[in-house]
Formats: sequence, structure tokens, C-alpha cells
Amino acid sequence: MNALILLCTLKPSPAASNTRALVDDAIVPVLETEGVSSQVVRLVDLDILPGVKTDMGEGDAWPAVHDKLLAADLLILATPTWMGQASSVCQRALERMDAMLSEKTSEGHPLAYNKVAGVVVTGNEDGAHHIVGTCLQALNDLGFTTPGQGSCYWNSGPGPGPSYSDTEKGHDYAKRVGGNMTRNLIAAARALRAQPLPVPKSGE
Amino acid sequence: MNALILLCTLKPSPAASNTRALVDDAIVPVLETEGVSSQVVRLVDLDILPGVKTDMGEGDAWPAVHDKLLAADLLILATPTWMGQASSVCQRALERMDAMLSEKTSEGHPLAYNKVAGVVVTGNEDGAHHIVGTCLQALNDLGFTTPGQGSCYWNSGPGPGPSYSDTEKGHDYAKRVGGNMTRNLIAAARALRAQPLPVPKSGE
Amino acid sequence: MNALILLCTLKPSPAASNTRALVDDAIVPVLETEGVSSQVVRLVDLDILPGVKTDMGEGDAWPAVHDKLLAADLLILATPTWMGQASSVCQRALERMDAMLSEKTSEGHPLAYNKVAGVVVTGNEDGAHHIVGTCLQALNDLGFTTPGQGSCYWNSGPGPGPSYSDTEKGHDYAKRVGGNMTRNLIAAARALRAQPLPVPKSGE
Amino acid sequence: MNALILLCTLKPSPAASNTRALVDDAIVPVLETEGVSSQVVRLVDLDILPGVKTDMGEGDAWPAVHDKLLAADLLILATPTWMGQASSVCQRALERMDAMLSEKTSEGHPLAYNKVAGVVVTGNEDGAHHIVGTCLQALNDLGFTTPGQGSCYWNSGPGPGPSYSDTEKGHDYAKRVGGNMTRNLIAAARALRAQPLPVPKSGE
Repeated sequence: MNALILLCTLKPSPAASNTRALVDDAIVPVLETEGVSSQVVRLVDLDILPGVKTDMGEGDAWPAVHDKLLAADLLILATPTWMGQASSVCQRALERMDAMLSEKTSEGHPLAYNKVAGVVVTGNEDGAHHIVGTCLQALNDLGFTTPGQGSCYWNSGPGPGPSYSDTEKGHDYAKRVGGNMTRNLIAAARALRAQPLPVPKSGE
Repeated sequence: MNALILLCTLKPSPAASNTRALVDDAIVPVLETEGVSSQVVRLVDLDILPGVKTDMGEGDAWPAVHDKLLAADLLILATPTWMGQASSVCQRALERMDAMLSEKTSEGHPLAYNKVAGVVVTGNEDGAHHIVGTCLQALNDLGFTTPGQGSCYWNSGPGPGPSYSDTEKGHDYAKRVGGNMTRNLIAAARALRAQPLPVPKSGE
Repeated sequence: MNALILLCTLKPSPAASNTRALVDDAIVPVLETEGVSSQVVRLVDLDILPGVKTDMGEGDAWPAVHDKLLAADLLILATPTWMGQASSVCQRALERMDAMLSEKTSEGHPLAYNKVAGVVVTGNEDGAHHIVGTCLQALNDLGFTTPGQGSCYWNSGPGPGPSYSDTEKGHDYAKRVGGNMTRNLIAAARALRAQPLPVPKSGE
Repeated sequence: MNALILLCTLKPSPAASNTRALVDDAIVPVLETEGVSSQVVRLVDLDILPGVKTDMGEGDAWPAVHDKLLAADLLILATPTWMGQASSVCQRALERMDAMLSEKTSEGHPLAYNKVAGVVVTGNEDGAHHIVGTCLQALNDLGFTTPGQGSCYWNSGPGPGPSYSDTEKGHDYAKRVGGNMTRNLIAAARALRAQPLPVPKSGE
């Protein structure tokens, strides 16, 4: 069983990412404890072309990410909050995942079926529940299952304030919630492996 | 296995509800075929008091709904779209469900854990994906699991237009999607019954 | 010039409302200083029937609120955050305002044209920007104008925490932002009084 | 008086854009009739670097867009709907506009104050009202004023369907609403030019 974490910070490497810090604190150690291998892909470092096909042509870095998605049992979208929304890097990833809807497994499932997905959000103000909602809707539409309490967030409340890595405030809360989320994702992935969703009826 | 359908139309009985019509067309027959008993509760007919506790006191109709929620394996929130949002009746139900978060089963799970939930939306214009997102976020926060493609909607596109029961347009689409959603909910409920989510770590 | 503040707390009088406290701290004193009379209507104390017409019949308290809306130059929607959303009381008010779209002034404007609207949100966790967005969309659709920085919020960041009236944290921020919002609403109302929006072309 | 239209299609030139087609049908002719000059900037053709500063360094195409924003009286964000959201190109533009909040005019206004903004959305399914809400919230936070009925959209209802340029369905509706929106933007820009918003109190 393995997990793919799509890190959607706007900051290219090697800059420090608060979202990465939360993932490293709250998610990755729990995956390790539970024996699930994981990989973090920092999307802003890649040239992911605009579009809604799996391969947008020469120079497009998405097909390699798409292959990782196919191989993963668990997907975690980890995004900062900008202007109250998931980052443009996160939205770009969702746009590119749109093509997964029409691609099918050999059994006839859309590619995301029987995979599970969760959402991690950081911010220094407000907006996490909304981002969880928009991401869950998109991921669910693609076919990902989200177990109860399948998200985790940290922000610092109204007005300008410190970022995640600038303070210890709320870290215990975020780690506890992130741990619960991670264990739920793993449990749901195992449950669906044992008893998969049926093949949906197709429109054509 | 049994399903509870919370019908969130603004229209008291015996007025015809488009949301009810979609539920009756797309969801209930599939539950029957799959051997899952179901019950539709039309919330607007009940006096559900404002508040965020399970029992808001004298005359409150929510405690009886709460009991039905506890007994259900599947929850389906079915709401019309007004001003781009889920109805006030739907939001009222979510507010009252807030109390489920701190109530625990004898095993220590929040009450919604290992239950599954889906969302059905009608409208005569636009807004369904957004409502699915806001409802999924709230339901997920409470602990409900949503299987891939766990929603279904119907509307009639931009500007004023016919309601669901005024036309046949798009019904086949909605029924197909609603059928898939229903089968996925049942499959996920069975998978979680066989392999439940773990008890989450609590903050206190 | 006068302002109507629709208070959307779930708590009936005489219980203390955090949303009311923020309005009283950040908005009302600025209206007074600027010579704008104001009135707070606590909607949960009224029997506002479900529906989308201005008058839903016997016992409906909305028609009196509708009259106050017609008389107001400024509207402020003040709502708590529950399950990440505006309260069911706020959504009920928006549903009832839906009918304003088809009612016209003697000049042919939809009733909300040349009125201004702002949004105040409280919560003890997260969700304010989202609620501002959903309310602004609905209010804008009806015809209300919102000046730049026409909202104000307070919450206390991730996880369970104090409510507005339990702490002084962030009050200075909220009061400053609320004051700016209020002055902008007044300035925009005056600007539109001097130079109104045109009468829109109607579909029929 | 002049208008800047930020076109947020995912399709680089010279591919046909449905969002561009709607703008050309519903918005640009009205601007011309009203004597407002306009410019459409197709953002996907530019190399707009990720980040939240006005200038992200070598090769960044945003500073030139930022200059156009400063010179514009009216801003129109025009975006397609992907996965239920504004495009990644639109979100990238909003992220880059974030820096406008801390930049001030010589009078002390945030740069967007006394400018007006509207939103145009296309899609082939559902999601426009939500996108209007998220964009209005972000634009309003920056200081842009949005007059009543300051948006316009087209989509084709539930399930897969034709794109804007594939059909004539709903075009009359979209053009009428787009015309009203455009006239309202112009009227509000003139009203604010005559009577500007005050300089807000700053936190520092």
C-alpha cells in the first residue's frame, strides 16, 4: 500500500514550505508507523502545462505524475490558502486529473475508483473548510472515496498572522487531526481493497 | 442495511417537491433493488428548532430525526438550490447534526463513523457542484464516509427554466448517475461494516 | 440614510449573541458617528416561513422585514458560522429575498438596485471568507452593490476555541476592518444616490 | 475610462476559447457602445510565475499585467469552469493580485479602491454562481467594488453537453445579462470617480 502526496505550495524548491512542514509533521510519520510508503511530489517544481488531457504534449511533466497517481492507493492533496482558495498549483493538478474520469481500468472502473483521497490545508488566516469542500467535491467526482474526517488543516485566525512554521500554536491540534485522517485513509483503502466499489453504468 | 433520506425541500406537504421527485426516480428504486430499506423524512414538515444541540427543548422535532440517523447505515441529503446554496432546511439539519461530533458510540467512535453519506441536488439553474462540496465537507467533518461519485444532481442550465418535474430533459442522465451513487453508497457501507475505521484520538 | 442589520444568530433572545457583540462593537458605533440611523433585526425571534415569495401567508413575519429592506439604504447581513456555512437563519433570509428580484421600483429597477450590502461573520474556527463569498454572490445577484472591502469577520483559528465574547483577541483587528467596511458602505450608498445604476434590460 | 478583461482560458492562442467568445458577444460590444475602451489579455499566453508578489523576478510576465490593472477603471475576470472551480489561470491571477493589497496610491488607498470589477463564467455543466462568489470575495477583499448584478455566465446544464460556441442555446440570455453587467460596471465606476471611497484605516 502506498501514498502519493501532491504538495501544492507556490514556492519552488529549495524554499521552505509551510504546507510541506505540516505534511511532514502530521501525515508522513503516521504513514510510516502504519507501514504505508509515501512520496511527496512538489508540483511547482515541475512544468505542468495548462489543459485537461493527461498529456498536453512536448515538455509536459504531468504524464509522470499521472503514472504515480495510478500506482497510488492513497492520494493526499496538500495546499496552501491564497485569496481564500486552494493554490493555482492545486487547481492545475485537479484540471489535469479531469482526464482520469474518462480513462478506465481493465475492469471498467474510472481510474480513481477504489482509491482514497484526503486534503491538507495551511494558511495564515481563514479558508480551510471551504478548500476542503471544493477539493472533496472534485476528488469525489473523479471517483476517489474519502473516509470520515479525511482532512486536516492549520491556520492562525483572523487578520495577518504567523505561518505554520513561525509558531508552535495549534500544532498539537493539527497533528492529532492529521493522524486521525491518515489512519482513516489507510483503513478505508484497505476496506475498499477487500470489497471494491462496483463498476458504474456508463452513459454511452 | 437501511438508508435515511433527509428531504430538504422548502415546500411543506402535500405540495409536490422536485427534489422528492428526483429522489423517487433515481435513488429509491435502486435502494429497493439492492435490498436496502429506506425512509424519506421531509424536514420542512417538522418543527426543527434552531440550535446546535441534539435536543433544543420543548417542541423540538429533531431528537426523533437524530434517532433515525443513529439507526441508518446510509444517509442521503437531498436539497434544492436557492440563491446558489443548499436550502435553509438542509443547513438547519447540518447545524443539528453538529452535536453528533461530540457524541460517541460505545466503542468510542463519533456517531457518524462507519456510516456513509451522499448528496442529491436539484435546481432550475446552477449551483449543484458547489452544494455537493459544502455538504460533503460538513458530512465528512462529522465522520461520514463518501464513496467515489457519491452525488447526483439535476438542473436546467443558465437563466430561468423548467424545474425537474416540468420536463424530461436530463432525467436519464440524473437517473444513471443517481443509480451509480446509490450502489457506491451501499458498497462502501458494506466495506466499512466488514472493516471499520479506527477510533480516532480525542483531544481531551 | 439608514441601515438595516439582519442578525442571523441561531440563539433566540434574550441569549447573548457573539455575532451581535461584533456588530455592536465594530459596525453600529461607526454608523452613529457617520450620522446613519440603524436597526438590528434578530431574525430567529421571528416566525419566518420557508419559501421564496415575499409573503408566505398567515403568520409569516417576513413581510415586515421586507418593508424594512425596502426602506433601507444599507443592508448588513451578520451571521455566525455553523458547519462552515452561514446559519440556516441567514440562508432563510436570502431565500425570502429571492422574490425581490422580480419586484421592481416605479423606475423599473429591481428592488435592491442602488442599495449597498456588506457581510459580517463570526465563528470560533474557520470559514468566514467562504461565507462572505456565498453571501456576496447572492446579494449581488439580487442587485445590491458591495463596495471594496465590504466585509468584516472574527474567528479564533483552527480547532475548538473561544467565541468572540470570551476573549479580547483579535477585537482590535475586527473593529478596524468593520469600521472601514461601514464607511465604505456609506460612501458607496451616497455615490449611487448621486449617480444611480441604470435600469437593466428585462428578459420578458 | 477603460476596461481590462483578464481572459483565463486554459487554451493558449490561437485555439478558440469559449470564454473569449462570450466576452466578445456579451461584454465588448457594450463597452464600445458606451465609449469605454477595452483590452483583453489572454493570460495563458504569458509566463506568469507562481507567487504572491508583484514581481517574481526574471522572466515574470505579471508586472506588465499589473501596470494594466493600475491603469484600468474596470476589471473583468473571465474564466472557464474546471472541476467546478475558476481555472488555475484565474487563480494564478488572483494570487498575483494579492500584492495589490499592501501597495497604496499616493492618497493612501489600496490600489484596487475606486475601481470596479465583474466576473464572467463559462462552462459546459454547472458551477458559475460558485465561481462568481469566490471571485467576488477575493476581488472585494482587494478593494474592488462590484455593482449589483455584476456578473454574467453561460453553461449548458447537467452532464456532458455542448460548449458555448457549439450552440446558440442561452446566448440571448447571456448577452442580455452581460450587457446589464457591463452598464452597471460603467455606472458604478463613474459614480465612484465622482464620489470616491474614503482612505481606510491601516493596521500599522
